[in-house]
Amino acid sequence: MKKSILITGGARSGKSALAERMALQPAGRAIYIATARLHDGDDEMAERVAKHKARRGAAWQDVHAPTDLAGALQDTDGGVPRLVDCLTLWLTNLILEDSDWQAEADRLVETLARQSAPVVFVTNEVGQGIVPENKLARLFRDAAGHVNQSVALACDEVWLTVAGYPMKVKPNDHSF
Amino acid sequence: MKKSILITGGARSGKSALAERMALQPAGRAIYIATARLHDGDDEMAERVAKHKARRGAAWQDVHAPTDLAGALQDTDGGVPRLVDCLTLWLTNLILEDSDWQAEADRLVETLARQSAPVVFVTNEVGQGIVPENKLARLFRDAAGHVNQSVALACDEVWLTVAGYPMKVKPNDHSF
Amino acid sequence: MKKSILITGGARSGKSALAERMALQPAGRAIYIATARLHDGDDEMAERVAKHKARRGAAWQDVHAPTDLAGALQDTDGGVPRLVDCLTLWLTNLILEDSDWQAEADRLVETLARQSAPVVFVTNEVGQGIVPENKLARLFRDAAGHVNQSVALACDEVWLTVAGYPMKVKPNDHSF
Repeated sequence: MKKSILITGGARSGKSALAERMALQPAGRAIYIATARLHDGDDEMAERVAKHKARRGAAWQDVHAPTDLAGALQDTDGGVPRLVDCLTLWLTNLILEDSDWQAEADRLVETLARQSAPVVFVTNEVGQGIVPENKLARLFRDAAGHVNQSVALACDEVWLTVAGYPMKVKPNDHSF
Repeated sequence: MKKSILITGGARSGKSALAERMALQPAGRAIYIATARLHDGDDEMAERVAKHKARRGAAWQDVHAPTDLAGALQDTDGGVPRLVDCLTLWLTNLILEDSDWQAEADRLVETLARQSAPVVFVTNEVGQGIVPENKLARLFRDAAGHVNQSVALACDEVWLTVAGYPMKVKPNDHSF
Repeated sequence: MKKSILITGGARSGKSALAERMALQPAGRAIYIATARLHDGDDEMAERVAKHKARRGAAWQDVHAPTDLAGALQDTDGGVPRLVDCLTLWLTNLILEDSDWQAEADRLVETLARQSAPVVFVTNEVGQGIVPENKLARLFRDAAGHVNQSVALACDEVWLTVAGYPMKVKPNDHSF
């Protein structure tokens, strides 16, 4: 297994399941860094988180990092792989609390370069639909593309999931 | 030609044209299983269906299966390939009439395993845009991802069309 | 470098940066054909255009072609490569002024066949989200898919960018 991997894809395209298989491969155990921020009354998200947790089972230690992802990587380094699920929710949390998400993305990439244990990131493709009418949605869409590019550049491998199957984006042999 | 093929892609990305070429390859004839439900007054959809039909021509026998897709596969098995166009409209029909779409998806996959003649499914990528504000749209998006994964798992091949050209998703040599 | 290349991808997926590298490869210089129509007060677009321009630097000659793209290709042919950024905004301009975009797309493809200097087109994937509720958005989405397929068919190479990295769509070895 390589040191750092980014997995991107659409909604329900098998990103998390692939990330879990990759993170468990070296040691059979891994740390799950969840970025979802649970709000009172958000049953839809709570149900999704509970489903993911039930699927993962006992091989996983859970860490919660809605915004300080660089800190969570630093704190959990040195042992088993970490799975970060997902960058899109982390970015959402930063934007909603009006943090400097570009500075945080830079800090994440710098921290990633100092890690000794593997990291598998899950993110989302959100930019392949019609341009959203909502201005905040457009800003978020651009920010997500920026974060995905920055983390992809810093990772050893990038994968795209389609209908549950992985396609290799980086490295590939598609030279021009 | 393999026994079962799933073709996914965005709107107007060449999915149906590719599926038609694949379905006609073995015999020069095929059965077209349409899932579109035509409502009075939906001129947009009627026009799209008429256009597709005109492009297909005489090599095709048409069958209409807006919800009982497993039944249509069973009834048409044993001869020429079948083209199912498309899973997304079939799922829409099931959800709109409040059917148990997960049970129907399971039944479809079980039926597929018993087919002797080839099947080419067309479906849509709908999960690579911004998360929809509309709750029903979010549920549909998740359901479509689930159906695509289930059928992809059961198929011998999965293809993604981009700007009219096919990219092979399954099987591929992208091991990890 | 091949004669004509189409680069597609989602928002902020690295399309323009890849197109610039490709267009500069043969000569270190290129012509940038911008299709963005700047409206008074559209600060969001003006900022985006200024950012792109600052990144490109002095190796570029700028040409503005919001609708007559075939004419701009003809006028700039014979020397260094041209980069067209992007087909989606060009199509938007044609639709907004109620032009016959299909006739213009045909004229573009015919003009492309007569070019002697290379052309790199940037376009957008807009059809992989939920079907838009807005009818004009649906028409645009279909038109964009049509234009992408037509230009892809006429180009020697087609690439899809994901998180800043290129995947080769045409030609590829994915035969069926």
